[in-house]
Amino acid sequence: MRPEESVMHPLEKMFRPASIAVIGASADAEKLGGRTLWHIKELGFQGRIYPINVTAREVQGLPAWPSVLDLPEVPDSALVVLPAPLVEKALRECAAKGILHVQVLSSGFAEEGGEGVAMQARLMEIVRGSGMRITGPNALGSISPPDGFFGTFSSLLATARPGPGHVGVATQSGAYGSHIYAVAGFRGIGISRAIATGNEADLDVAACIDYLADDPGTRVICASLEGCKDGAGLRHALLKAAARRKPVIIMKVGSTEEGAAAAATHTGSLAGEDRIIDAVFRECGAWRASSIEEMLDIAYICSIAPLPPCDGVGILSVSGGLGVLMADAAIHAGLKVPPMAPEVMARILEIQPVAGGRNPIDTTAQLNGRMHIFESISQAMMQGAELGSVMFYLAHLGRNVPRFPPLEQALTALRQGFPDRLVVAVMTHVDEIRLKLEAVGIPVFEDPTRAVRAVAGAAHLRRLQAAALAAPEVPRAARRLTGPVHEAAAKALLAEAGVPVLPEQVCATAEDAVRAAGRLGYPLVMKILSPDIPHKTEVGGVLLNLTTAEAVAEGFAELMRRARLHKPEARLEGVLLTPMVSGGVETIIGVQRDPVFGPMVMFGLGGTSVELFNDVAFATAPLTPERAEALVASVRGARLLEGWRGAAPLDRAALVAALCAVSCFAVAHRDEVTGVEVNPFLVQVKGGQALDALIALEDDAARH
Amino acid sequence: MRPEESVMHPLEKMFRPASIAVIGASADAEKLGGRTLWHIKELGFQGRIYPINVTAREVQGLPAWPSVLDLPEVPDSALVVLPAPLVEKALRECAAKGILHVQVLSSGFAEEGGEGVAMQARLMEIVRGSGMRITGPNALGSISPPDGFFGTFSSLLATARPGPGHVGVATQSGAYGSHIYAVAGFRGIGISRAIATGNEADLDVAACIDYLADDPGTRVICASLEGCKDGAGLRHALLKAAARRKPVIIMKVGSTEEGAAAAATHTGSLAGEDRIIDAVFRECGAWRASSIEEMLDIAYICSIAPLPPCDGVGILSVSGGLGVLMADAAIHAGLKVPPMAPEVMARILEIQPVAGGRNPIDTTAQLNGRMHIFESISQAMMQGAELGSVMFYLAHLGRNVPRFPPLEQALTALRQGFPDRLVVAVMTHVDEIRLKLEAVGIPVFEDPTRAVRAVAGAAHLRRLQAAALAAPEVPRAARRLTGPVHEAAAKALLAEAGVPVLPEQVCATAEDAVRAAGRLGYPLVMKILSPDIPHKTEVGGVLLNLTTAEAVAEGFAELMRRARLHKPEARLEGVLLTPMVSGGVETIIGVQRDPVFGPMVMFGLGGTSVELFNDVAFATAPLTPERAEALVASVRGARLLEGWRGAAPLDRAALVAALCAVSCFAVAHRDEVTGVEVNPFLVQVKGGQALDALIALEDDAARH
Repeated sequence: MRPEESVMHPLEKMFRPASIAVIGASADAEKLGGRTLWHIKELGFQGRIYPINVTAREVQGLPAWPSVLDLPEVPDSALVVLPAPLVEKALRECAAKGILHVQVLSSGFAEEGGEGVAMQARLMEIVRGSGMRITGPNALGSISPPDGFFGTFSSLLATARPGPGHVGVATQSGAYGSHIYAVAGFRGIGISRAIATGNEADLDVAACIDYLADDPGTRVICASLEGCKDGAGLRHALLKAAARRKPVIIMKVGSTEEGAAAAATHTGSLAGEDRIIDAVFRECGAWRASSIEEMLDIAYICSIAPLPPCDGVGILSVSGGLGVLMADAAIHAGLKVPPMAPEVMARILEIQPVAGGRNPIDTTAQLNGRMHIFESISQAMMQGAELGSVMFYLAHLGRNVPRFPPLEQALTALRQGFPDRLVVAVMTHVDEIRLKLEAVGIPVFEDPTRAVRAVAGAAHLRRLQAAALAAPEVPRAARRLTGPVHEAAAKALLAEAGVPVLPEQVCATAEDAVRAAGRLGYPLVMKILSPDIPHKTEVGGVLLNLTTAEAVAEGFAELMRRARLHKPEARLEGVLLTPMVSGGVETIIGVQRDPVFGPMVMFGLGGTSVELFNDVAFATAPLTPERAEALVASVRGARLLEGWRGAAPLDRAALVAALCAVSCFAVAHRDEVTGVEVNPFLVQVKGGQALDALIALEDDAARH
Repeated sequence: MRPEESVMHPLEKMFRPASIAVIGASADAEKLGGRTLWHIKELGFQGRIYPINVTAREVQGLPAWPSVLDLPEVPDSALVVLPAPLVEKALRECAAKGILHVQVLSSGFAEEGGEGVAMQARLMEIVRGSGMRITGPNALGSISPPDGFFGTFSSLLATARPGPGHVGVATQSGAYGSHIYAVAGFRGIGISRAIATGNEADLDVAACIDYLADDPGTRVICASLEGCKDGAGLRHALLKAAARRKPVIIMKVGSTEEGAAAAATHTGSLAGEDRIIDAVFRECGAWRASSIEEMLDIAYICSIAPLPPCDGVGILSVSGGLGVLMADAAIHAGLKVPPMAPEVMARILEIQPVAGGRNPIDTTAQLNGRMHIFESISQAMMQGAELGSVMFYLAHLGRNVPRFPPLEQALTALRQGFPDRLVVAVMTHVDEIRLKLEAVGIPVFEDPTRAVRAVAGAAHLRRLQAAALAAPEVPRAARRLTGPVHEAAAKALLAEAGVPVLPEQVCATAEDAVRAAGRLGYPLVMKILSPDIPHKTEVGGVLLNLTTAEAVAEGFAELMRRARLHKPEARLEGVLLTPMVSGGVETIIGVQRDPVFGPMVMFGLGGTSVELFNDVAFATAPLTPERAEALVASVRGARLLEGWRGAAPLDRAALVAALCAVSCFAVAHRDEVTGVEVNPFLVQVKGGQALDALIALEDDAARH
């Protein structure tokens, strides 16, 4: 059952309990159980607190109970902060008492391997069937600053307590989470809810995103994963947030081989192909951040301001050099910096005759107290180009409290006059000025490049959200394939699925081949046909440009000889004869079944572009034509399809149709097909052709 | 004359004058001339100050003079803070008085175009011949915090004065500079000298780098350019700093088309091909930063710690997730994260049995007061792999003053035990702990990714410095070429310069061609030969694979026909006949004479890799074999030369030799040759061949 389908989301009572048991509560605030209780008791929680301690009748001034079984009510939630060997019994008692929401903060389970794995499995046996949901083990707990609830032992709270606000945080790692809360606190970014899920024996980060997507107190979600076991759940949660137009900024560590190896040691879960994760995040409308700082920069914008409606950014700067720096950064980050229309530029030059540039606009520092011109210039800019954002570079004016009011006026007027645009101030500043601007929805940054990158993140989020869409449902195929599938059979299956293939003929003898050649017409290509030879070129199993009957007969004999030489045990079914085509551009269409995310499409160009330039892109299967078009466009080499160096443009629609057909075939046969590769798929001026195809089945792998 | 060749660098007296005149000094601290005087007078300057004011006899409590001509001594330096129209007279008086070092802070010159350009030119007439050197006009002045000298009107100083330290800053833009000083100040990074050169009518940023390279008070140089007029001066200064092992972190705005257009409007100077700037910075040992924040992060490291001796980084983390994040960031930034040797790993696991990973090493947060294990684990790590840096992720321990001492001990022991390695702490922190670590040479960062990127910048700087080397001198060729130069002549010239070319024959008639064909041997390539047809393929002027005498005769007629059809006015000199070769990999060797940096070599592969993937690299001409090898290696497609997909490796040495020969040819003829293109240069299994060549001369351009 998906969390949302229950009447109440299990995380609701973990973030906002009316009553809570702290199992393992201690009088000693140095101990985890003592600190957790102290945080709940002292930092503003208004509900009922039940310390559970086997011996003490009072803990930190509160009445204590030996077991949850003794409690006068069934608390909404419980936190388990016991040594690992005691957790099983405690959880059993929670189940008996009917406590439905338990966070297991204790460590010493699957993350340590060995016996810990078995202990964690035993916890899940208790959970299953009891109706209970848990986070952890090895979790950090949850906080809800607007409610004064801090259900965690994080020592961070001693020196840096996150304030209330609108950023929701869900991380797997507790340290990752507490780093985020800490830095958010230093920067004055308020938190709505935050949670770290630890080993994720039950509830995972996806479930937390799912909750936060619905939580009215949360405007933007920061999430961090180390691995993912439930691809469908993650997709579902991200798509829900995108549908609610709630930005999700997400990180996943292990993006390099070295990092993935370390992550595997650390979490015991395989990281998978990083570009598949990229594709899933992107397709589900989330922005993948590469640093915690970037994540918080974007979350900061999203928590107080709208996402920019388009990629155009206007830059108004008191310094030419800084304006150019920001324009460069904007272009590098994928934004647009459109020049102001001439008539608007003329108006701006009337206001400030020494102004330079058409965007960025350099007001120069020669303002002599005429700070009010920022208002008229920035208002004019909105007419001069299609701008989703306007950024002001104001040097050190943000430290000049007496001179700032006209600038505050200009910024506020722009923000209020264009409520759907993003207005950002970049300057060194004092808190007084920053807080005033934030209060009217204007983010303030110190570093120009960071500001631009954060604006770009927000703009990209808007575009990703708008494009996010669940993959269409494809029913399972009625017939389950059995293998192995040789080339001709693979092509026949794909042809049936709508992929264009050339006429071809399976020929068991040289005589058959000569007869078929006459029908097919010369020149011809001849390939060895054997279910045991998937990579024909490796055995010299392909002959090109056969132009006569003699060549066909000799070719047959030659291929048989080569096959027997290189792979004597191979079952030979003859040869495959097909007309030779030339012209067009060779592409590769592949589908691989990912263990977490299911069939994923891979697209690239033939030749060296995939191997040398890594010019390949991934998308979830099945593709829609729009997604297939976006997939093709995301490959740099796709420009070759547009009519390269004066050549005629190629039939992109045929390629898109083939991508969709291959992807739907793979999804229809998702139970047994582990991979499909059409390599090459030749895109021609009119149409396209699958020149070779491979279909790998689960039982193929079993056989090897 | 290069600045260093004078007995005293002109900037010495601009940074450290014993006496200074402030021309345009005012009693009103709101005015630029008032503020400048106030900064010098009040912020610690120990020398003699001479306010110059046409009317007042006293300014801000100091005796004032109507003109520098009236001064009782010749001051070391003068600052001009007058309205633009008054500057010329003031400068004339400085020259008459014999003041040799003048900073013109007044604006309203070339940066405003029109009459300003002429006014600036008149200033330079005064400067030339007077022995005087100036910065500006439109400069911001200079500061030298260790000397208490603040010769600038920057309003920043009212709220954020840079402290004394070891970072030298040279920028063209004043706003850029003051942004850097401000942020450095907030972060506690001390400044040795800082200067902004404005319009650079005389002294430029390169001259400032040249000075700072020798300045004993400066350990690291931050520089920012908007344009560059004197390529040789910039190279000279950067190479000097590299030779002194003084890191230079440099920015140049205008790295995108949009940015370059804005920079051109702003500074009036063409930005040039950005990758040429990249190549010059890199070859001269400087690191190009993409943001001010990145620049200061690296400068911060360099100001207190050594550059890491190699790219290996060891990561020790209290959190698995953050350790992986840092490992990912390190790989993305070009560092190495080598795994610990098994015997060292065994030792580490003895110390902390629950430790995870082989690098990053996750100590886990289960330390229970055993903070001392960081010392033994980190010491062990130094034996486990080749590490240039060690990074500690310590979560929030940097805010925990009572618990920090054992960590401080571990960090300090490592830093002192391995004085040439970089040791970095990453954690949220309080100033007290940060300052203690900085005092022993340990940089402290809050954001893990930023810390890793800064370490990578420092590691790259070390490698760049070590490789920095002035280009060898190539004497001018004795004979000046005149043009135009057709293909055969171009090849002959390049052959003479040492570039291998195929035997070929110029044939004026079809009969000549048939005779030559017999000598050369079939198959042949025939190309039209005309000084007026540089791009032969555009007129169909190349015929491939001619295998018979008849084909040669017909081919001759056909080429003449095509040439007359497409370019009736072209002077036809016949055809060029050459053996057809196949196999190998086609490359492009180009040289373009950059107006600022002189001949620059371009290298890329044939086919689509240059156009589709922008897979092309630049280097300064002339190349040495080492540089040519590095140039080839920096192109991704160069892997094709190594024996792609089982093919035999190609003759890289022949390619390197050809690159050197072409580059030396272009330098020897730098006065008249504007471009050379060998396209393709075919790299074969043994040797290589220039299959086509173009040489463009200055007078070609004049003729078109």
